[in-house]
Amino acid sequence: MFFISDTMAGAAPEILKAVEAVNDGLFLGYEGDPVCEEMKAQFAKIFETEVSVFLVATGTASNALALSVMTPPYGAVFAHEGAHINVDECGAPEFYTQGTKLAAIKGANGKLTCEGVRAALTNFPKGVVHRMQPGGLSLSQATELGTIYTVDEINALSEFAQSHGMATHMDGARFANALVALGCSPAEMTWRAGVDVLSFGATKNGALMAEAVVFFNQDLVGDFAYRQKRGGHLFSKSRFSAGQFLGYFKDDLWLKLARRSNDLAGRLEAGLMELPGYELACPVQTNQVFVTMSRELVLRWQEAGAQFYIWSGDPAQERQLVRLVCSWKTTDEQVDQLLEVARG
Amino acid sequence: MFFISDTMAGAAPEILKAVEAVNDGLFLGYEGDPVCEEMKAQFAKIFETEVSVFLVATGTASNALALSVMTPPYGAVFAHEGAHINVDECGAPEFYTQGTKLAAIKGANGKLTCEGVRAALTNFPKGVVHRMQPGGLSLSQATELGTIYTVDEINALSEFAQSHGMATHMDGARFANALVALGCSPAEMTWRAGVDVLSFGATKNGALMAEAVVFFNQDLVGDFAYRQKRGGHLFSKSRFSAGQFLGYFKDDLWLKLARRSNDLAGRLEAGLMELPGYELACPVQTNQVFVTMSRELVLRWQEAGAQFYIWSGDPAQERQLVRLVCSWKTTDEQVDQLLEVARG
Amino acid sequence: MFFISDTMAGAAPEILKAVEAVNDGLFLGYEGDPVCEEMKAQFAKIFETEVSVFLVATGTASNALALSVMTPPYGAVFAHEGAHINVDECGAPEFYTQGTKLAAIKGANGKLTCEGVRAALTNFPKGVVHRMQPGGLSLSQATELGTIYTVDEINALSEFAQSHGMATHMDGARFANALVALGCSPAEMTWRAGVDVLSFGATKNGALMAEAVVFFNQDLVGDFAYRQKRGGHLFSKSRFSAGQFLGYFKDDLWLKLARRSNDLAGRLEAGLMELPGYELACPVQTNQVFVTMSRELVLRWQEAGAQFYIWSGDPAQERQLVRLVCSWKTTDEQVDQLLEVARG
Amino acid sequence: MFFISDTMAGAAPEILKAVEAVNDGLFLGYEGDPVCEEMKAQFAKIFETEVSVFLVATGTASNALALSVMTPPYGAVFAHEGAHINVDECGAPEFYTQGTKLAAIKGANGKLTCEGVRAALTNFPKGVVHRMQPGGLSLSQATELGTIYTVDEINALSEFAQSHGMATHMDGARFANALVALGCSPAEMTWRAGVDVLSFGATKNGALMAEAVVFFNQDLVGDFAYRQKRGGHLFSKSRFSAGQFLGYFKDDLWLKLARRSNDLAGRLEAGLMELPGYELACPVQTNQVFVTMSRELVLRWQEAGAQFYIWSGDPAQERQLVRLVCSWKTTDEQVDQLLEVARG
Repeated sequence: MFFISDTMAGAAPEILKAVEAVNDGLFLGYEGDPVCEEMKAQFAKIFETEVSVFLVATGTASNALALSVMTPPYGAVFAHEGAHINVDECGAPEFYTQGTKLAAIKGANGKLTCEGVRAALTNFPKGVVHRMQPGGLSLSQATELGTIYTVDEINALSEFAQSHGMATHMDGARFANALVALGCSPAEMTWRAGVDVLSFGATKNGALMAEAVVFFNQDLVGDFAYRQKRGGHLFSKSRFSAGQFLGYFKDDLWLKLARRSNDLAGRLEAGLMELPGYELACPVQTNQVFVTMSRELVLRWQEAGAQFYIWSGDPAQERQLVRLVCSWKTTDEQVDQLLEVARG
Repeated sequence: MFFISDTMAGAAPEILKAVEAVNDGLFLGYEGDPVCEEMKAQFAKIFETEVSVFLVATGTASNALALSVMTPPYGAVFAHEGAHINVDECGAPEFYTQGTKLAAIKGANGKLTCEGVRAALTNFPKGVVHRMQPGGLSLSQATELGTIYTVDEINALSEFAQSHGMATHMDGARFANALVALGCSPAEMTWRAGVDVLSFGATKNGALMAEAVVFFNQDLVGDFAYRQKRGGHLFSKSRFSAGQFLGYFKDDLWLKLARRSNDLAGRLEAGLMELPGYELACPVQTNQVFVTMSRELVLRWQEAGAQFYIWSGDPAQERQLVRLVCSWKTTDEQVDQLLEVARG
Repeated sequence: MFFISDTMAGAAPEILKAVEAVNDGLFLGYEGDPVCEEMKAQFAKIFETEVSVFLVATGTASNALALSVMTPPYGAVFAHEGAHINVDECGAPEFYTQGTKLAAIKGANGKLTCEGVRAALTNFPKGVVHRMQPGGLSLSQATELGTIYTVDEINALSEFAQSHGMATHMDGARFANALVALGCSPAEMTWRAGVDVLSFGATKNGALMAEAVVFFNQDLVGDFAYRQKRGGHLFSKSRFSAGQFLGYFKDDLWLKLARRSNDLAGRLEAGLMELPGYELACPVQTNQVFVTMSRELVLRWQEAGAQFYIWSGDPAQERQLVRLVCSWKTTDEQVDQLLEVARG
Repeated sequence: MFFISDTMAGAAPEILKAVEAVNDGLFLGYEGDPVCEEMKAQFAKIFETEVSVFLVATGTASNALALSVMTPPYGAVFAHEGAHINVDECGAPEFYTQGTKLAAIKGANGKLTCEGVRAALTNFPKGVVHRMQPGGLSLSQATELGTIYTVDEINALSEFAQSHGMATHMDGARFANALVALGCSPAEMTWRAGVDVLSFGATKNGALMAEAVVFFNQDLVGDFAYRQKRGGHLFSKSRFSAGQFLGYFKDDLWLKLARRSNDLAGRLEAGLMELPGYELACPVQTNQVFVTMSRELVLRWQEAGAQFYIWSGDPAQERQLVRLVCSWKTTDEQVDQLLEVARG
């Protein structure tokens, strides 16, 4: 009963096969090989537009490097206070941007609102040299709480950002989970809704280690390639990263895997909500279930061998906030087993 | 006839298999999984000492991150002027160290000498606040020219460094090639000769993407893990990097692959030296052959379909310096074919 | 009627004279001259302990450089959300620390509380590599709102910081104003209360441009001199900065000037509080008065020629928050004149 | 007999008076005050063109900040190997540019040549992502050896830089000394010869602490003000820096002071050249004399109380290279006294 993280599962067999499939041939690499060309073409096709794609090793690198071409070092990037870039990357954004401030904004269900950003913006008046300057907006789709922005919400945020001279970044570490939940096209969820640059993650959804920075706004690309190299994220054998994406996209594997983990989270939610003592902390929209329960229940779960993450910091609290994540590899049986435990 | 780089070849089948072999199981990753534990144990065994090992995505990241814990931002790192860190990493060392100067030192055959470092040191007097301070020494084994340091030379350099309060880093992007050429043990070539930290590369010698920072001097480790995370080089599914090392070390695969490419370079050298018009630019000691030839010969080779790197910058020169690299995948036939072309 | 800032006034004549007084003589400078020696001796005497003192050009540099030796680049510095370092320095702390996050904490009257810091600390668990690490605590004495910490409060905060492995920095841009308000000794308000490093400002209180970083905790000094030089804050003719401090300390000028501006602020407060329509936003403890009034009153003041800073961002609000600052040069007459306007 | 540095002298009385003269009045400062306006107007008049002027505390800050808007962090700035930015600023350029490499170039008499820069440029091919990119050219006028570039030489270097997409920076720490030596106009020596940005120093030539960054190329100014603030170099009471320039320019004081120190250096040179045992290391063109002499002579000078800088690092050498600097305050008598010693 492992519900700690979707990164606990290995790689989908289809993706492993795709890696093997690109092993032959002698290529110069560094994103100039035919595998990368094919990978880029597929991104363009999937997103129905011209894109610039760069491969990196982790979602942290993807986010931090994307931000580094949006904001000056003395800029402020507006993000939800719970955003991965603000909480879980040990200062990678500050490192790659060389000093940017993350303006952390509160918002229900892990989501930014224009009102929240507008209020924060008053601390960064344009042209006042004593103040850091508006540097960009970053939203996570899905959010850290597993919730999703509607297309209209993304549109509103990116328009607001643009009206203040800022570009919009989307942290898509769980892009596929959000996409299938929203049921729209990749284009609709991104550039058509005003997103300038996307951190597109595949690792959490079945890849070995495959993350891409995808630029829709070509004006932003600028010197990204130099920054990528400088961060040690330009791979000599780039085919092995690109190859994972080929396997990921083939026959819509990525959508199937995401649907599976989303569905399981839905099944888990439904089961828990039939039981007393469990309360949803926010709507279950993708592959994560955030639920509050008593310390006693937490203890019982742990004793039964369930593994999960206690999200709230304070172990002294009576009610604990627990995160349960389903991965592409989670099974119906594992969910049922956990529900069995939950029933007590 | 591809002799451009050893990164042109894909991965050795044994290593691909090792990747598959670690795919099962649910692990938290981030270098805490059992595959990483096994990988670390193997490093300790191979180097016959306690080591701290960290995985990163590229040799560039490995070098830059290693340097970042050796030198202060206002330090100078002494390296050969042709070193990868000085020439080929787009400023990654400067980025990760946040401003270190690479003090570039001349030296025959791509090798540093104590005399060279001593002369350069006079520009960085200790305790003079106007000057950058001695920050570390970095040597490449094998060097960018494919030559190698003897154990005595490494010893002398590291002792010299230590006597000036500096740690010693070894760029081991082609560690295995140097090791089998030198015929000593990994321990002898590193910590027993005074090396504090090693960038251990496997990618050029048959891995997909597997680079490790190996600390022999535990006092240096310090906050490396935070810097690694901050650079976006801490992998959630670290098993897939660690797994490559398991395959790399198994049954001495790494040594076999390195011997093969070294031998082929030797064969290529021998063949060329029998022909008029070809001159070695430096001794062939590992898997690279640096040879000078006339522009006419270069042209003939190119027309015959040979692919290689023209090392010297100036295309107007009559004699051109050419680099020929044999990989783990290069065959006797390919070498013979190239020699055929060379014969004209 | 200029109440915008205490930096609007020029320099006290005594300080100008002190600058002239050190003009003779040929000195090597760079803080090695006899004027600097004398200045350092005076700091030691005033603070009744061994200190390390470094001169810089601005309070911003003083704060940022002080923080740079307290926190690693991946550290979080805890400060009040309204702190100068968080709001008014265009990212100088992030620049000098090379990426530190300022963890902004709310607190009544511009003051940090242990409770506030404790809550914020939960986001930075020690040893968790994904999270930025506790890097230091910074408090401002006087605060941006002109309020002051009691010695007990400083003690509690620094003890709390220390118990979490953090050093304590005091932003003393208005140190003298706080000191005379508190009526204790410089030692009591700083190192005896656990402060490790102090940004000691004289510019706002009558100097031309004189700021010092004062280390009580000698273990922290480390490589400060290199960082100072690297920031371009090591002065060749350091005597002219040091000389200002000689004039500042002579015959307790600094205390006299601070008392004068504090007293005037008190007089202003008393006068305003007798009138309807004015409300104190926080206690007046030093040389600043924060008062709320209607937009109508603001307009009347402005029309009468009064100059002051509207602190609250939103001009649409009915009640406006206004800052009134008295400087060492402000006169009784100017305060009376403003009160006249206030009376309407 | 103090010939160590021109920073050993205090400030010219005229400049001290100018500081006093701007003390009255209440100004908001931060380079927005009337004194700064007047200072900027004078710069425009002296340089006969539109300029953007920013004040900073030291020559080191001036150089480093100027470079920071010319080059990307992954850029290489071409400078003479003996340049102040390369040798004497403890990595300030690397700090402010956030990682730029200084490409150190040899050249006779401390001067860059186009040939030298061209050769160095081959290491930084445009568009090759593995290499740092051409980032700018910096020349010192006068040089660290007291020599000067002719207007034609400046022109050639800046044209060369421009043809490679680089801007040209002039380190003018001793601008006035070079100017009066060259006998041309400030405009001819700078923007008319292609200089984009100038670090204009007054401190070495009689000011207390007055350095300015002067932009001729307005396209470069960009976000300089934010970088200046972030470095802690935006002064609240900026009038006191600007006021020094008013005194400096008034009645051509700056030219008179520079002429005086240049003349004295000439007198010193002439005297020494009449004596056996002294050899010029390079032409004496401004206020510095570089002379080689035997260790015995060095000792005799030292015993006679002469103070000077031994430039060459190696005390074991038989011939020593000695630097003798005349300041605005050096007198005929002091030079004669030194010549007396030299005569033995």
